[in-house]
Amino acid sequence: MGDIDLRDLIAVKRDGGVLSPEQIDIFVDAAASSSAPEVHLASMLMAIFCRGLTTEERTAYSLAMMRSGDVLDWSHLRRPTADKHSTGGVGDKVSLIWAPLMAAVGYAVPMISGRGLGHTGGTLDKLESIPGFRTDLDTEAMDRVIQAVGCVMVGQTATLVPADRTLYALRSRTGTVPTLDHIAPSIMSKKLAEGADSLVLDVKVGSGAFMKNRADARELADVMVAIGEGAGRKVAAVLSDMSTPLGLAVGNSVEVEESVDCLKGGGPADLRALVLDLAQSCIEVSGQAANVGLPTNPVALRGRLEQALDGGSAMEHFERMVELQGGDVASLYDPSRLEGISETTVSGHTAKQAGLIHAIDALDVGLAAAALGGGRGADGEAPHPGVGVILTKRPGDEVARGEVWATLRHAPGSDVEAARDLLERALLVEPKLGGGS
Amino acid sequence: MGDIDLRDLIAVKRDGGVLSPEQIDIFVDAAASSSAPEVHLASMLMAIFCRGLTTEERTAYSLAMMRSGDVLDWSHLRRPTADKHSTGGVGDKVSLIWAPLMAAVGYAVPMISGRGLGHTGGTLDKLESIPGFRTDLDTEAMDRVIQAVGCVMVGQTATLVPADRTLYALRSRTGTVPTLDHIAPSIMSKKLAEGADSLVLDVKVGSGAFMKNRADARELADVMVAIGEGAGRKVAAVLSDMSTPLGLAVGNSVEVEESVDCLKGGGPADLRALVLDLAQSCIEVSGQAANVGLPTNPVALRGRLEQALDGGSAMEHFERMVELQGGDVASLYDPSRLEGISETTVSGHTAKQAGLIHAIDALDVGLAAAALGGGRGADGEAPHPGVGVILTKRPGDEVARGEVWATLRHAPGSDVEAARDLLERALLVEPKLGGGS
Repeated sequence: MGDIDLRDLIAVKRDGGVLSPEQIDIFVDAAASSSAPEVHLASMLMAIFCRGLTTEERTAYSLAMMRSGDVLDWSHLRRPTADKHSTGGVGDKVSLIWAPLMAAVGYAVPMISGRGLGHTGGTLDKLESIPGFRTDLDTEAMDRVIQAVGCVMVGQTATLVPADRTLYALRSRTGTVPTLDHIAPSIMSKKLAEGADSLVLDVKVGSGAFMKNRADARELADVMVAIGEGAGRKVAAVLSDMSTPLGLAVGNSVEVEESVDCLKGGGPADLRALVLDLAQSCIEVSGQAANVGLPTNPVALRGRLEQALDGGSAMEHFERMVELQGGDVASLYDPSRLEGISETTVSGHTAKQAGLIHAIDALDVGLAAAALGGGRGADGEAPHPGVGVILTKRPGDEVARGEVWATLRHAPGSDVEAARDLLERALLVEPKLGGGS
Repeated sequence: MGDIDLRDLIAVKRDGGVLSPEQIDIFVDAAASSSAPEVHLASMLMAIFCRGLTTEERTAYSLAMMRSGDVLDWSHLRRPTADKHSTGGVGDKVSLIWAPLMAAVGYAVPMISGRGLGHTGGTLDKLESIPGFRTDLDTEAMDRVIQAVGCVMVGQTATLVPADRTLYALRSRTGTVPTLDHIAPSIMSKKLAEGADSLVLDVKVGSGAFMKNRADARELADVMVAIGEGAGRKVAAVLSDMSTPLGLAVGNSVEVEESVDCLKGGGPADLRALVLDLAQSCIEVSGQAANVGLPTNPVALRGRLEQALDGGSAMEHFERMVELQGGDVASLYDPSRLEGISETTVSGHTAKQAGLIHAIDALDVGLAAAALGGGRGADGEAPHPGVGVILTKRPGDEVARGEVWATLRHAPGSDVEAARDLLERALLVEPKLGGGS
């Protein structure tokens, strides 16, 4: 009684038709308000899975979900706003560096992040390994931090995109998860609700990523960019490699440590390059460089971004954000103060064969870190903040038989044996032929 | 907890794969036992709708539904068993004649029929306009009647194909009704559970039928025959016209009266011909003619079937069945004793234009009879047994301006005006040109 009857809409999609924005609103509203029978929603989700959506339908779907809850407005900041989304990878600590870097060059970054899923760590889990750091700020508290520092990093609140939460759970129950027609609107609805003018998408491709090959990653990128543009935002996408972990550290506290290195102008080259690429892409697509006093020439812009890392300005912004969000700033300079680190033991992992390292598989390294306790279990159990894997070699390096190529940081409860087996599988070494001619 | 998880099966069909008979059993068992979440069933129904089923999958689906309840066994009768299914039409009283005719020539007919739907009357509704006639026999009572007469006509019991009842309701709720992949297994599961060796399908085509064109009707027939043959039964299909009502009478008591005319060797020619065609097809496909002493030569077989109608043997079987099922045999000879007839008033409906009758639309006549109260409402309200429309002209006949071409049998509560409007629309007259050359 009083239920919304979705069957006319279901019939449109089931028969391969196109839903109007108004019809998509009705469907999403029904999901958000639980005013339609679940079997109607289930049937519609599968019809969308099987028949697909047009670009216009995907945009309408994203906007309808966005409107199901709060939509943040940052116009009072009088600064261009920017945001970033990563499809998730092993060792992906980019957000921790990117947000203060963007703030350092004049953008405001109101970033809402997620927890880890499976073998990929979440930005929130990493930030919470800084003692005292709070990610559960309300909009008012977010606003205070962003006004003071230019960036803020928080977790999703219940009032942001509630329709997605309902549909996300139902997609899992109805076997309708693996399609861009649901995935892209789910991601984009949240990013649109965060209210930034410009957005850069880091679409990972490789064994450790959701998308295993370049064509699929390109398609996901294109679909998300089209949704964002359809919704009137400036959106750029970067495809980045996830066949090997990003940087050297995989875990929570250990990734904060590596992020700080990068914010101080150091850190692994692949991590620094990706952070700079994503900042540059976002600034370029925003069309706002000149408004914040940045050069529009790409080489000059790159120089300014490098300077923000090397000159300490990005680190200053990070420090100030950590401070205002309740975190222990001293831990950024003394990693032993980071959560869980003191409970861990370090041991090396050696190569069984000498030669040239051809590959270090990202998925296997991610699973190894998870075996040590660094992943979020299927039961939602919190990860151990201190454990992790730190690579000491990269593909292209040579390794001797018996030489350490990775160190494990493990804790009581870590399944060290499983982690070592996974690292064994991760490493691909090409034996050197002959002894030289 | 303890629920069956269908998501692996959903993924197979969703991705366009083929389900094994074992997987289809799991799905149907889950529906029958309510042991899976409804949203799983909903999602699977839509995946089947969108991706379709192979012939083997449809057969497995039908057999799985059949096995969800009682499967009748008539082997103790030591006679070939035969059954018939009609896809439903206006004025379709064939079963009332066909079952006793088949019994008269040596077959056993254990027929389970349905109620009317929308504008088409149901066999059960028609039989129940014979005072006292009971259609709610249990298997033991069915067996007594079929042993004594060779035919029995009852309604579906709760123990027959319970999975179909669950899925039928859910198909309606999930917008997954209009596909042969669900419709044909739903029909065939019930016919297979009735346990007859041979089955003839009367697939109606035209405005008054579910299938409006010949290609769709042919496809439905082919799909159902393939399921039946896959299940090891002998199955024939006849496509029959439903652009015009079958016979002249449309209603409940009025159709019993016309059926009795046909059982006595009279009645409209189209009705008699279709009854004979369906009997002949079923006997031919059964391969059992010789076993019951029938000629195998088609012309001779047709003669024997005509003789069973004209010589009174079919009528004797009908009378005996009515008697054993508690019905008032005298009403078969005195139509005023049939239910509801005495409450009705007869009035003629005249033509507004003279000429040759080109068409009398079956759907409109069906809707007219329903307007008089002869249909089963959306709320399941029982039809009035006495009301109806009786055509007095057929396409091909000439009609004069002001001449009666149909009579209405109406009762208090009949919407006579609506019925007359519908009859107006049903009649297509071609004016005669000139006055002769």
